[in-house]
Amino acid sequence: MKPLADIDSQIVCLLKEGSFVSGQEISTALKLSRSAVWKRINGLRKGGYAIEARPNKGYKLSTSEKPYTTVAVSSALKTETFARVLHFHESVESTNTLARKLAQDDAEEGTAVIAQAQTNGRGRRGRAWHSPKGVNLYTSIILRPDISPVHAPTLTLLAAVALAEAIEEFIAPIRVNVKWPNDILINGRKVAGILTEMSSEPDKIDHIIIGIGVNLNIEAKALPEELAEIATSLREASGRAVDMTLFACSLYSSLEKWYALSLSSGFAPVLAKWRTYFDKVGQNVKVSEGGKGVATEGICTGIDDDGALLIKTTDNVIERVVSGDVI
Amino acid sequence: MKPLADIDSQIVCLLKEGSFVSGQEISTALKLSRSAVWKRINGLRKGGYAIEARPNKGYKLSTSEKPYTTVAVSSALKTETFARVLHFHESVESTNTLARKLAQDDAEEGTAVIAQAQTNGRGRRGRAWHSPKGVNLYTSIILRPDISPVHAPTLTLLAAVALAEAIEEFIAPIRVNVKWPNDILINGRKVAGILTEMSSEPDKIDHIIIGIGVNLNIEAKALPEELAEIATSLREASGRAVDMTLFACSLYSSLEKWYALSLSSGFAPVLAKWRTYFDKVGQNVKVSEGGKGVATEGICTGIDDDGALLIKTTDNVIERVVSGDVI
Repeated sequence: MKPLADIDSQIVCLLKEGSFVSGQEISTALKLSRSAVWKRINGLRKGGYAIEARPNKGYKLSTSEKPYTTVAVSSALKTETFARVLHFHESVESTNTLARKLAQDDAEEGTAVIAQAQTNGRGRRGRAWHSPKGVNLYTSIILRPDISPVHAPTLTLLAAVALAEAIEEFIAPIRVNVKWPNDILINGRKVAGILTEMSSEPDKIDHIIIGIGVNLNIEAKALPEELAEIATSLREASGRAVDMTLFACSLYSSLEKWYALSLSSGFAPVLAKWRTYFDKVGQNVKVSEGGKGVATEGICTGIDDDGALLIKTTDNVIERVVSGDVI
Repeated sequence: MKPLADIDSQIVCLLKEGSFVSGQEISTALKLSRSAVWKRINGLRKGGYAIEARPNKGYKLSTSEKPYTTVAVSSALKTETFARVLHFHESVESTNTLARKLAQDDAEEGTAVIAQAQTNGRGRRGRAWHSPKGVNLYTSIILRPDISPVHAPTLTLLAAVALAEAIEEFIAPIRVNVKWPNDILINGRKVAGILTEMSSEPDKIDHIIIGIGVNLNIEAKALPEELAEIATSLREASGRAVDMTLFACSLYSSLEKWYALSLSSGFAPVLAKWRTYFDKVGQNVKVSEGGKGVATEGICTGIDDDGALLIKTTDNVIERVVSGDVI
């Protein structure tokens, strides 16, 4: 399935920022009539693109505008397959819920959903995810890995690595940390989260949805009171506004790269990279397991090759914690 | 949610086979007008119930008919919760697919789906499940166990135990065997299968659908050619027709019992029972893994506490096989 926006994306790719491209060039390259080109240029302008048109010279992109639309994202993608089929919505209940529906209708691997806002954004364990419009990224991507369901949790760590890498590109030289298993923190404040959902038979994965929420440009004063002390955004941390379209594209590139690497070389490189973001080794930690009130406390010695958190308790036993929240 | 059929089920429960029950009694017991009772009796007749009505005496059930309807199943249920919410359809694409939709719309644990026929019945790994109308049982039930997703495969073995037990009730003294992990065989021929599908986060199950197909009354000559040599039905094996309504109710009771036991006492009793149905210990077996053409061959030594198949290969190593098909 090719999204309708594909032709628009191709036009945006042909347009340049410094010089004019003639309507005839576009028309020839894309096998469109001149009037069809003109109509699409007008559509792109309505979609937020600042396009200058001059008689006998053609069209030119202005650099000042930063549109965040299907076309903008599609035309800036650097991936092979990830987000090449993109469902971009103004508002959805939850990008994961929509992605799940698409997956059940046989959407192919790499299909992505973006929403400018979510009316019922979800975090782990049914928690809410604050999803105001126009400032943050809310996206979900469909994977269909040919691995056993028991190895699926490793994909959450993979997503954390890809996400951490994409964030650091935009806030350099500031660094991020991961909070086991999959939150991304800047200076101890949460800036992004991952919700992995799987549909499987006991020995076969049908699909995995990786849902990602990233606080990009939300201002501290716009955060709900309960998040004000514990959350931040890329903009708050770095002092620079983030181009949402370019961030989404970087994230998809990073996800695609790490996913391909893990399929070809196994999980070890992902794990090694994840460990570079993890700053709790040697520290005292407390983990609540599965929301059951049970807690394990001790010195964190790292994560094992399955991604389980390792904790040395007071009686010198190393415990593996496979699920829970670090308090 | 109470199904509309509930009142009908209550009427059927009040009716007796040997003696008459007056319309007034039913009317009082269920707080219905006499004319409402009369309308419902007529509805039940259309649904397949043979109900005799006599002036001044009331209503009586005839024993000869064996209806297979929502009302028939609901009124014969002996369970606490399983199938108490029942979606009974003449034909659906797949009971598992419908159950999944219901689960995503927050259907409660125990909600069940029955279809008299499936247009796209599914077995494991996307294989087809032959689902002609009116002769076999096709049902799915929604579970929401508070266990880690890594333990989900044990529920497939649990379903196999419950199913084996229900089948043996109807074909005694003939016995069944299980084929690892979850087919039920009579004299080496497949009579029933289970398709378990799960929706989960890495550390939390949202829901599990247990789909069960049982060849109850299909005749050997009605089996498709490719199944004729390898499949059978309860009727073919025992020479007796099976009451589909009663079979469904026994199955739900058996599932509910084993599920409650495993939640209260762990998986050991299920495993012990499963082993009594398993007849391959000490035999040479070959297992294809995950449809990948990889095969493990050797002497089967049993299953371990996770339900994995144990095979001693020629170099005396015990291999654990967690997924695949015994050839």
